[in-house]
Parts: sequence; C-alpha cells; structure tokens
Amino acid sequence: MEENIVVAIQDEYSDDFAWCYGCGRLNEEGHHFRTCWQGEKTVTIFSPEARHLALPGFVYGGIVASLIDCHGTGSASLALHRKNGHEPGEGAEPPRFVTASLNVNFIKPTPHGVPLKAVGTVHEIHPKKYKVETEVYANDTLCARGEVVAVVMPSTFLKKE
Amino acid sequence: MEENIVVAIQDEYSDDFAWCYGCGRLNEEGHHFRTCWQGEKTVTIFSPEARHLALPGFVYGGIVASLIDCHGTGSASLALHRKNGHEPGEGAEPPRFVTASLNVNFIKPTPHGVPLKAVGTVHEIHPKKYKVETEVYANDTLCARGEVVAVVMPSTFLKKE
Repeated sequence: MEENIVVAIQDEYSDDFAWCYGCGRLNEEGHHFRTCWQGEKTVTIFSPEARHLALPGFVYGGIVASLIDCHGTGSASLALHRKNGHEPGEGAEPPRFVTASLNVNFIKPTPHGVPLKAVGTVHEIHPKKYKVETEVYANDTLCARGEVVAVVMPSTFLKKE
Repeated sequence: MEENIVVAIQDEYSDDFAWCYGCGRLNEEGHHFRTCWQGEKTVTIFSPEARHLALPGFVYGGIVASLIDCHGTGSASLALHRKNGHEPGEGAEPPRFVTASLNVNFIKPTPHGVPLKAVGTVHEIHPKKYKVETEVYANDTLCARGEVVAVVMPSTFLKKE
C-alpha cells in the first residue's frame, strides 16, 4: 500500500483552479488529494486525519465521498489531458473538470488508521463529459464504490472579484 | 434564511455515537451539522467555512455531499425516533443510522458566503431502512439534490478498544 505519487494532475492545475478544499495545492487547510495514472487505471492515495471519524475506529463517509469526488474530476482531467497528447510532468496545463453527479455505495465500514486507495476507471461519454468508476480500498478491503460524472468546467466558474 | 435549530437530533445521540466529523457534537474539529423537524420536512443549516472552497466564490462539492450525508442519517433518526413516540428535547436516546448509499446531483454552483439549507423528505422503506431525499438551497437557489439510503447502525460498529 505504501506508494508514492510523483507527479499528480492536480500539481499542474493552473493557480486559479488550485483552491479546492479536496484537491487544491494552494488550499493550505484542504485534503490535498493527488491523482495519477497507474497503467490504464487512475489512483489517489489518502490517509484520513484523526478528526475524520464516523465513529472511533472508522472513517467518516463524507471524507470517502470527497475522495471519490476529487479522484473523479482528477481522473477525467488525466484522461482528457492524455487524449490531448499530454502527461502530468510535462508542464502543460490540464483541463479542469467539475462534478455533475456523485454516487457512493458504502460496502464495508472504512477502517481508520490505514491509507485509503481510490482506483478509477475512466469512460469518455462525450468530448467534454467523463464517467469515472472508483473503488476505494483500505489495504485489500473494498470499502466503497463510487461513480462520478465530470464535465469540463464552464468558464462562468471563474469568478472575477 | 436566518433560522435557529433549538434542539437537534444529534444533540441527543449517545456519547459513543457523537464523534462523527460531519455531525458529532464531541468532535471538536467537525462540521457540527444539526438536524431538526420543520413540519413534515427535516432541516439542516450550515455555513461553510472559508477553506471549504471549490474555486474562489463557490463551495466544495464534498462539503455539500457531507451535508447531505449527515442530514440523511439525522433525518432517518428523527423519523424512527418519532415513530417510536419521541421528539428531540425529551431526552430519549435516538436510533443511530449509517449511510448505505449517497447520491448527489449538483444543479448549480453553490455560492460561498451564505448559509446552506438542506431540506429533507423521509421515506420508510423498511423498519430499519429509510430513504431521505434532500434539496440544498443557498438563499432561494436550489444548488444540489441528494438521496441517502440510511440503515440502523449494526452493533458491530461500536468498536471496543
């Protein structure tokens, strides 16, 4: 389970798009989810903090949902970036996605104290719309399955102050 | 939108069940979601913190999902508690639910800086299983729709250290 994500797609989001509480590198208080390719799958690894409890010993479902959410938009970004001929680490700015829908099925209580690994399978359903199916593991135990439909962020999201 | 929840179902969860990062009153670093009846609907009001961004100006979807999650389990608890002849404030210990599934459709970007109001409709689908349909509003704007299937917490969740 000990794995290291060297370059994640979120490392290359433009600064304007790097404030997300889930995955923004510039949000100092956020979770800093980071997502990369692992063969044809996508992977995000996250170790919940002490406060992220449902009950003592188990991880809060909203954190699992958050992991699936940003893993989904990050995976969609990886996929479209690759389709455009780029890989993380090249320095090209990746496309930024937002979540249209998020579905989570909680299969087993998620144990607290071990890293969680989200593994995603990406499907293009439209040039600007991707579906990402995700499994969340704690060690070898499948704890949750999720599905995110992610769409390329509309330009209206960039709020000019 | 300024409303006050006097007694919430989460105020009366037993101490063992009050550590949730979303809605546990004993989790000092959590969101402290609090849910009550409003007629036949259930209501949770939450003001996202500064860090809870997706992008500047908009609320992170994982926070909206977390709100829908705990609003769902809290609403199910309110409903079964009422079925058992109790209301929050009487001091009777309510049943505690866990989330089996969580679905969120993001309808409009959720503006940051205003309280969010989750409004739920509760359906019993089995004596130990409830479905809660939730709408999340920012002022009068419907930003997200969610559905939670919540089940009475199995006794195995209480981890004995």
